[in-house]
Amino acid sequence: MTDIDKQLQFIIEIDKVKNIFRRNYIADGSRNENVAEHSWHLAAMAIILEPHVEKVNILKVIKMVIIHDIVEIDAGDTYIHDKEGLKDKKQREEQAAKRIFSMLPEDQGKELRDLWHEFETGESNNAQFANVLDRLHPFLMHIESKGKAWIENNISVKQVYEVMSSVEKFPRLWEYLTQKISIACEKGWLQNDEKI
Amino acid sequence: MTDIDKQLQFIIEIDKVKNIFRRNYIADGSRNENVAEHSWHLAAMAIILEPHVEKVNILKVIKMVIIHDIVEIDAGDTYIHDKEGLKDKKQREEQAAKRIFSMLPEDQGKELRDLWHEFETGESNNAQFANVLDRLHPFLMHIESKGKAWIENNISVKQVYEVMSSVEKFPRLWEYLTQKISIACEKGWLQNDEKI
Repeated sequence: MTDIDKQLQFIIEIDKVKNIFRRNYIADGSRNENVAEHSWHLAAMAIILEPHVEKVNILKVIKMVIIHDIVEIDAGDTYIHDKEGLKDKKQREEQAAKRIFSMLPEDQGKELRDLWHEFETGESNNAQFANVLDRLHPFLMHIESKGKAWIENNISVKQVYEVMSSVEKFPRLWEYLTQKISIACEKGWLQNDEKI
Repeated sequence: MTDIDKQLQFIIEIDKVKNIFRRNYIADGSRNENVAEHSWHLAAMAIILEPHVEKVNILKVIKMVIIHDIVEIDAGDTYIHDKEGLKDKKQREEQAAKRIFSMLPEDQGKELRDLWHEFETGESNNAQFANVLDRLHPFLMHIESKGKAWIENNISVKQVYEVMSSVEKFPRLWEYLTQKISIACEKGWLQNDEKI
Protein backbone atom coordinates (compact mmCIF):
# COMPACT_ATOMS: atom_id res chain seq x y z
CA MET A 1 0.00 0.00 0.00
CA THR A 2 1.35 3.49 -0.83
CA ASP A 3 1.74 6.21 1.79
CA ILE A 4 -1.21 8.11 0.41
CA ASP A 5 -3.45 5.04 0.55
CA LYS A 6 -2.50 4.52 4.20
CA GLN A 7 -3.09 8.18 4.98
CA LEU A 8 -6.50 8.28 3.32
CA GLN A 9 -7.53 5.10 5.16
CA PHE A 10 -6.45 6.72 8.44
CA ILE A 11 -8.42 9.87 7.57
CA ILE A 12 -11.52 7.74 7.00
CA GLU A 13 -10.93 5.62 10.12
CA ILE A 14 -10.88 8.66 12.41
CA ASP A 15 -14.28 9.75 11.10
CA LYS A 16 -15.60 7.42 13.82
CA VAL A 17 -15.01 10.05 16.52
CA LYS A 18 -18.10 11.82 15.15
CA ASN A 19 -20.12 9.03 16.72
CA ILE A 20 -18.43 9.14 20.13
CA PHE A 21 -20.56 11.27 22.43
CA ARG A 22 -19.27 12.96 25.56
CA ARG A 23 -21.11 13.75 28.81
CA ASN A 24 -21.13 17.50 28.24
CA TYR A 25 -23.71 19.25 26.07
CA ILE A 26 -23.06 21.74 23.28
CA ALA A 27 -23.55 25.35 24.37
CA ASP A 28 -27.30 25.54 23.69
CA GLY A 29 -27.90 22.39 25.75
CA SER A 30 -29.79 20.70 22.90
CA ARG A 31 -27.65 17.54 22.71
CA ASN A 32 -24.41 15.94 23.86
CA GLU A 33 -21.23 16.89 22.10
CA ASN A 34 -19.16 14.47 20.09
CA VAL A 35 -15.38 14.11 20.06
CA ALA A 36 -14.88 15.70 16.61
CA GLU A 37 -16.74 18.84 17.70
CA HIS A 38 -14.87 18.97 21.01
CA SER A 39 -11.51 18.61 19.23
CA TRP A 40 -12.35 21.33 16.68
CA HIS A 41 -13.33 23.67 19.50
CA LEU A 42 -10.06 22.99 21.36
CA ALA A 43 -8.07 23.88 18.24
CA ALA A 44 -10.04 27.13 17.89
CA MET A 45 -9.41 27.89 21.59
CA ALA A 46 -5.67 27.22 21.17
CA ILE A 47 -5.57 29.76 18.31
CA ILE A 48 -7.61 32.38 20.18
CA LEU A 49 -5.99 32.04 23.62
CA GLU A 50 -2.38 31.73 22.40
CA PRO A 51 -1.59 35.39 23.30
CA HIS A 52 -2.07 34.49 26.98
CA VAL A 53 0.57 31.75 27.11
CA GLU A 54 4.32 31.75 26.83
CA LYS A 55 6.85 29.28 25.51
CA VAL A 56 4.47 27.09 23.61
CA ASN A 57 4.80 25.77 20.08
CA ILE A 58 1.28 26.51 18.94
CA LEU A 59 1.48 24.19 15.92
CA LYS A 60 2.33 21.27 18.22
CA VAL A 61 -0.48 22.23 20.60
CA ILE A 62 -3.01 22.31 17.76
CA LYS A 63 -1.80 18.97 16.39
CA MET A 64 -2.15 17.52 19.90
CA VAL A 65 -5.71 18.67 20.41
CA ILE A 66 -6.80 17.60 16.92
CA ILE A 67 -5.65 14.00 17.53
CA HIS A 68 -5.82 13.74 21.34
CA ASP A 69 -9.06 11.76 21.53
CA ILE A 70 -8.87 9.47 18.50
CA VAL A 71 -7.84 6.63 20.83
CA GLU A 72 -11.47 6.74 22.01
CA ILE A 73 -12.44 5.01 18.74
CA ASP A 74 -11.35 1.78 20.46
CA ALA A 75 -11.23 2.81 24.12
CA GLY A 76 -14.48 4.82 24.35
CA ASP A 77 -14.95 8.09 26.20
CA THR A 78 -14.18 7.86 29.91
CA TYR A 79 -16.08 10.40 31.99
CA ILE A 80 -13.66 12.46 34.06
CA HIS A 81 -15.64 11.81 37.26
CA ASP A 82 -15.89 8.03 36.61
CA LYS A 83 -13.31 6.66 39.10
CA GLU A 84 -13.92 3.04 38.07
CA GLY A 85 -13.51 3.72 34.35
CA LEU A 86 -10.37 5.78 34.94
CA LYS A 87 -8.57 2.74 36.44
CA ASP A 88 -7.89 0.94 33.14
CA LYS A 89 -8.24 3.99 30.87
CA LYS A 90 -4.50 4.24 30.31
CA GLN A 91 -4.13 0.62 29.26
CA ARG A 92 -7.17 0.71 26.95
CA GLU A 93 -5.95 3.90 25.31
CA GLU A 94 -2.36 2.66 24.84
CA GLN A 95 -3.66 -0.35 22.91
CA ALA A 96 -5.89 1.89 20.83
CA ALA A 97 -3.01 4.26 20.06
CA LYS A 98 -0.89 1.32 18.93
CA ARG A 99 -3.51 0.12 16.46
CA ILE A 100 -4.70 3.47 15.13
CA PHE A 101 -1.40 5.31 14.67
CA SER A 102 0.09 2.17 13.05
CA MET A 103 -2.26 2.71 10.12
CA LEU A 104 -0.03 5.62 9.03
CA PRO A 105 3.39 5.48 7.32
CA GLU A 106 5.86 4.56 10.07
CA ASP A 107 7.56 7.93 10.68
CA GLN A 108 4.30 9.84 10.66
CA GLY A 109 2.59 7.33 12.92
CA LYS A 110 5.48 7.60 15.38
CA GLU A 111 5.42 11.41 15.32
CA LEU A 112 1.70 11.54 16.13
CA ARG A 113 1.87 8.78 18.71
CA ASP A 114 4.75 10.60 20.45
CA LEU A 115 2.67 13.77 20.38
CA TRP A 116 -0.27 11.91 21.91
CA HIS A 117 2.03 10.57 24.65
CA GLU A 118 3.32 14.08 25.28
CA PHE A 119 -0.29 15.24 25.70
CA GLU A 120 -1.13 12.35 28.01
CA THR A 121 1.98 12.84 30.17
CA GLY A 122 0.99 16.50 30.49
CA GLU A 123 4.43 17.77 31.48
CA SER A 124 5.77 19.88 28.62
CA ASN A 125 4.59 23.46 28.21
CA ASN A 126 2.70 22.43 25.09
CA ALA A 127 0.96 19.56 26.85
CA GLN A 128 0.10 21.71 29.86
CA PHE A 129 -1.62 24.26 27.64
CA ALA A 130 -3.41 21.53 25.64
CA ASN A 131 -4.60 19.87 28.86
CA VAL A 132 -5.88 23.16 30.25
CA LEU A 133 -7.88 23.69 27.06
CA ASP A 134 -9.21 20.14 27.34
CA ARG A 135 -10.55 20.96 30.83
CA LEU A 136 -11.64 24.51 30.15
CA HIS A 137 -13.70 23.63 27.06
CA PRO A 138 -16.28 21.32 28.68
CA PHE A 139 -16.39 23.80 31.60
CA LEU A 140 -17.49 26.55 29.17
CA MET A 141 -20.07 24.19 27.70
CA HIS A 142 -21.38 23.31 31.19
CA ILE A 143 -21.79 26.99 32.06
CA GLU A 144 -23.49 27.85 28.76
CA SER A 145 -25.87 24.89 28.99
CA LYS A 146 -26.90 25.98 32.52
CA GLY A 147 -25.08 23.16 34.27
CA LYS A 148 -27.22 20.47 32.60
CA ALA A 149 -24.60 17.70 32.68
CA TRP A 150 -23.43 18.68 36.18
CA ILE A 151 -26.97 18.43 37.49
CA GLU A 152 -27.57 15.08 35.75
CA ASN A 153 -24.41 13.62 37.27
CA ASN A 154 -24.70 15.21 40.74
CA ILE A 155 -21.33 16.92 40.41
CA SER A 156 -20.08 18.93 43.38
CA VAL A 157 -18.06 22.13 43.62
CA LYS A 158 -15.17 20.14 45.03
CA GLN A 159 -15.15 17.74 42.08
CA VAL A 160 -15.07 20.65 39.65
CA TYR A 161 -12.19 22.31 41.50
CA GLU A 162 -10.31 19.00 41.45
CA VAL A 163 -10.53 18.47 37.70
CA MET A 164 -9.93 22.16 36.93
CA SER A 165 -6.90 22.66 39.20
CA SER A 166 -4.44 22.79 36.26
CA VAL A 167 -6.02 26.04 35.07
CA GLU A 168 -4.60 27.82 38.14
CA LYS A 169 -1.32 28.27 36.25
CA PHE A 170 -3.11 30.75 33.98
CA PRO A 171 -4.26 33.54 36.33
CA ARG A 172 -6.62 35.30 33.95
CA LEU A 173 -8.40 32.08 32.98
CA TRP A 174 -8.48 31.01 36.63
CA GLU A 175 -10.14 34.26 37.66
CA TYR A 176 -12.84 33.76 35.01
CA LEU A 177 -13.32 30.17 36.13
CA THR A 178 -13.69 30.88 39.86
CA GLN A 179 -16.26 33.59 39.11
CA LYS A 180 -18.27 31.17 37.02
CA ILE A 181 -18.06 28.43 39.66
CA SER A 182 -19.53 30.88 42.20
CA ILE A 183 -22.40 31.61 39.85
CA ALA A 184 -22.94 27.88 39.22
CA CYS A 185 -23.20 27.36 42.98
CA GLU A 186 -25.68 30.19 43.43
CA LYS A 187 -27.82 28.80 40.62
CA GLY A 188 -27.77 25.31 42.16
CA TRP A 189 -26.04 23.73 39.16
CA LEU A 190 -23.32 22.26 41.39
CA GLN A 191 -23.83 20.39 44.64
CA ASN A 192 -22.48 22.17 47.68
CA ASP A 193 -20.03 19.71 49.31
CA GLU A 194 -21.02 20.73 52.81
CA LYS A 195 -24.55 19.52 52.16
CA ILE A 196 -23.54 16.13 50.68
CA MET B 1 -14.50 44.39 28.26
CA THR B 2 -11.06 42.77 28.65
CA ASP B 3 -9.40 40.85 25.83
CA ILE B 4 -10.05 37.55 27.55
CA ASP B 5 -13.74 38.32 27.98
CA LYS B 6 -13.99 39.13 24.27
CA GLN B 7 -12.09 35.96 23.37
CA LEU B 8 -14.24 33.72 25.55
CA GLN B 9 -17.41 35.27 24.11
CA PHE B 10 -16.07 34.58 20.62
CA ILE B 11 -15.26 30.98 21.59
CA ILE B 12 -18.83 30.51 22.80
CA GLU B 13 -20.34 32.29 19.76
CA ILE B 14 -18.64 29.93 17.30
CA ASP B 15 -20.17 26.93 19.08
CA LYS B 16 -23.13 27.60 16.77
CA VAL B 17 -21.38 25.87 13.86
CA LYS B 18 -22.22 22.57 15.61
CA ASN B 19 -25.81 23.19 14.56
CA ILE B 20 -25.08 24.02 10.92
CA PHE B 21 -25.58 20.87 8.88
CA ARG B 22 -24.03 20.27 5.47
CA ARG B 23 -25.37 18.26 2.52
CA ASN B 24 -22.78 15.51 2.86
CA TYR B 25 -23.13 12.62 5.29
CA ILE B 26 -20.53 11.39 7.78
CA ALA B 27 -18.66 8.31 6.54
CA ASP B 28 -21.14 5.71 7.82
CA GLY B 29 -24.03 7.53 6.10
CA SER B 30 -26.06 7.70 9.32
CA ARG B 31 -26.59 11.49 9.37
CA ASN B 32 -25.49 14.74 7.80
CA GLU B 33 -22.24 16.29 8.96
CA ASN B 34 -22.04 19.60 10.74
CA VAL B 35 -19.52 22.39 10.18
CA ALA B 36 -17.53 21.76 13.39
CA GLU B 37 -16.96 18.12 12.43
CA HIS B 38 -16.06 19.05 8.86
CA SER B 39 -13.57 21.68 10.08
CA TRP B 40 -11.95 19.26 12.54
CA HIS B 41 -11.55 16.70 9.79
CA LEU B 42 -9.94 19.26 7.46
CA ALA B 43 -7.39 20.13 10.15
CA ALA B 44 -6.58 16.44 10.61
CA MET B 45 -6.23 16.06 6.82
CA ALA B 46 -3.91 19.08 6.66
CA ILE B 47 -1.66 17.45 9.29
CA ILE B 48 -1.70 14.03 7.61
CA LEU B 49 -1.34 15.15 3.98
CA GLU B 50 1.28 17.86 4.61
CA PRO B 51 4.15 15.62 3.36
CA HIS B 52 2.61 15.74 -0.14
CA VAL B 53 2.66 19.51 -0.52
CA GLU B 54 5.45 22.04 -0.85
CA LYS B 55 5.85 25.65 0.17
CA VAL B 56 2.96 25.80 2.58
CA ASN B 57 2.90 27.23 6.09
CA ILE B 58 1.02 24.39 7.74
CA LEU B 59 0.11 26.45 10.84
CA LYS B 60 -1.58 29.03 8.63
CA VAL B 61 -3.39 26.29 6.68
CA ILE B 62 -4.69 24.72 9.89
CA LYS B 63 -5.83 28.09 11.26
CA MET B 64 -7.62 28.71 7.95
CA VAL B 65 -9.51 25.44 7.95
CA ILE B 66 -10.45 25.74 11.63
CA ILE B 67 -12.12 29.13 11.07
CA HIS B 68 -13.04 28.97 7.35
CA ASP B 69 -16.75 28.26 7.84
CA ILE B 70 -17.64 30.26 10.95
CA VAL B 71 -19.18 32.91 8.65
CA GLU B 72 -21.93 30.33 8.07
CA ILE B 73 -23.25 31.18 11.56
CA ASP B 74 -24.90 34.19 9.90
CA ALA B 75 -24.73 33.27 6.20
CA GLY B 76 -25.78 29.60 6.39
CA ASP B 77 -24.23 26.73 4.44
CA THR B 78 -24.45 27.18 0.67
CA TYR B 79 -24.48 23.89 -1.23
CA ILE B 80 -21.69 23.84 -3.77
CA HIS B 81 -24.08 22.80 -6.57
CA ASP B 82 -26.68 25.47 -5.66
CA LYS B 83 -26.10 28.03 -8.44
CA GLU B 84 -28.80 30.38 -7.13
CA GLY B 85 -27.45 30.41 -3.57
CA LEU B 86 -23.87 30.94 -4.79
CA LYS B 87 -24.84 34.29 -6.38
CA ASP B 88 -25.01 36.29 -3.15
CA LYS B 89 -22.86 33.94 -1.03
CA LYS B 90 -19.87 36.29 -1.10
CA GLN B 91 -21.85 39.29 0.10
CA ARG B 92 -23.63 37.35 2.87
CA GLU B 93 -20.35 35.90 4.09
CA GLU B 94 -18.50 39.25 4.04
CA GLN B 95 -21.14 40.73 6.33
CA ALA B 96 -20.92 37.72 8.63
CA ALA B 97 -17.12 37.94 8.76
CA LYS B 98 -17.36 41.60 9.71
CA ARG B 99 -19.66 40.91 12.64
CA ILE B 100 -18.07 37.72 13.95
CA PHE B 101 -14.36 38.59 13.74
CA SER B 102 -15.13 42.01 15.28
CA MET B 103 -15.98 40.24 18.51
CA LEU B 104 -12.24 39.63 19.05
CA PRO B 105 -9.59 42.13 20.17
CA GLU B 106 -8.84 44.31 17.11
CA ASP B 107 -5.46 42.91 16.02
CA GLN B 108 -6.55 39.31 16.46
CA GLY B 109 -9.84 39.87 14.67
CA LYS B 110 -7.97 41.45 11.76
CA GLU B 111 -5.46 38.58 11.58
CA LEU B 112 -8.19 35.96 11.38
CA ARG B 113 -10.36 37.96 8.99
CA ASP B 114 -7.34 38.41 6.69
CA LEU B 115 -6.70 34.67 6.90
CA TRP B 116 -10.35 34.00 6.00
CA HIS B 117 -10.00 36.36 3.01
CA GLU B 118 -6.84 34.56 1.95
CA PHE B 119 -8.74 31.27 2.06
CA GLU B 120 -11.68 32.69 0.10
CA THR B 121 -9.45 34.27 -2.56
CA GLY B 122 -7.79 30.90 -2.96
CA GLU B 123 -4.60 32.17 -4.58
CA SER B 124 -1.75 31.68 -2.11
CA ASN B 125 -0.13 28.26 -1.74
CA ASN B 126 -1.69 27.98 1.72
CA ALA B 127 -5.15 28.83 0.45
CA GLN B 128 -4.82 26.47 -2.50
CA PHE B 129 -4.01 23.57 -0.19
CA ALA B 130 -6.80 24.52 2.23
CA ASN B 131 -9.30 24.76 -0.64
CA VAL B 132 -8.26 21.37 -2.00
CA LEU B 133 -8.83 19.84 1.45
CA ASP B 134 -12.23 21.57 1.60
CA ARG B 135 -13.22 19.86 -1.67
CA LEU B 136 -11.54 16.53 -1.02
CA HIS B 137 -13.10 16.01 2.40
CA PRO B 138 -16.79 15.88 1.37
CA PHE B 139 -15.68 13.78 -1.63
CA LEU B 140 -14.24 11.18 0.76
CA MET B 141 -17.46 11.29 2.78
CA HIS B 142 -19.56 10.84 -0.39
CA ILE B 143 -17.54 7.79 -1.41
CA GLU B 144 -17.67 6.22 2.07
CA SER B 145 -21.42 6.80 2.42
CA LYS B 146 -22.00 5.09 -0.95
CA GLY B 147 -22.86 8.29 -2.81
CA LYS B 148 -25.93 8.95 -0.64
CA ALA B 149 -25.90 12.75 -0.97
CA TRP B 150 -24.96 12.59 -4.66
CA ILE B 151 -27.92 10.31 -5.37
CA GLU B 152 -30.32 12.51 -3.34
CA ASN B 153 -29.25 15.60 -5.26
CA ASN B 154 -28.96 13.99 -8.75
CA ILE B 155 -25.33 15.00 -9.06
CA SER B 156 -23.56 14.16 -12.33
CA VAL B 157 -19.98 13.13 -13.10
CA LYS B 158 -19.45 16.44 -14.85
CA GLN B 159 -20.56 18.42 -11.79
CA VAL B 160 -18.15 16.50 -9.59
CA TYR B 161 -15.24 17.06 -12.00
CA GLU B 162 -16.09 20.77 -12.04
CA VAL B 163 -15.99 21.25 -8.28
CA MET B 164 -12.96 18.99 -7.86
CA SER B 165 -10.80 20.49 -10.61
CA SER B 166 -8.45 22.22 -8.14
CA VAL B 167 -7.23 18.82 -6.91
CA GLU B 168 -5.51 18.26 -10.29
CA LYS B 169 -2.53 20.24 -8.99
CA PHE B 170 -1.81 17.35 -6.62
CA PRO B 171 -1.17 14.37 -8.93
CA ARG B 172 -1.32 11.63 -6.30
CA LEU B 173 -4.59 12.90 -4.86
CA TRP B 174 -5.95 13.41 -8.37
CA GLU B 175 -5.17 9.81 -9.33
CA TYR B 176 -7.03 8.56 -6.24
CA LEU B 177 -9.96 10.83 -7.02
CA THR B 178 -10.36 9.82 -10.68
CA GLN B 179 -10.29 6.15 -9.70
CA LYS B 180 -13.02 6.73 -7.13
CA ILE B 181 -15.14 8.73 -9.61
CA SER B 182 -14.98 5.78 -12.03
CA ILE B 183 -16.18 3.46 -9.29
CA ALA B 184 -18.97 5.90 -8.33
CA CYS B 185 -20.13 5.88 -11.98
CA GLU B 186 -20.10 2.09 -12.18
CA LYS B 187 -22.14 1.87 -8.98
CA GLY B 188 -24.67 4.40 -10.27
CA TRP B 189 -23.98 6.93 -7.48
CA LEU B 190 -23.35 9.67 -10.04
CA GLN B 191 -25.50 10.50 -13.05
CA ASN B 192 -23.81 9.92 -16.37
CA ASP B 193 -23.95 13.24 -18.24
CA GLU B 194 -24.55 11.60 -21.59
CA LYS B 195 -27.81 10.17 -20.28
CA ILE B 196 -29.15 13.45 -18.82
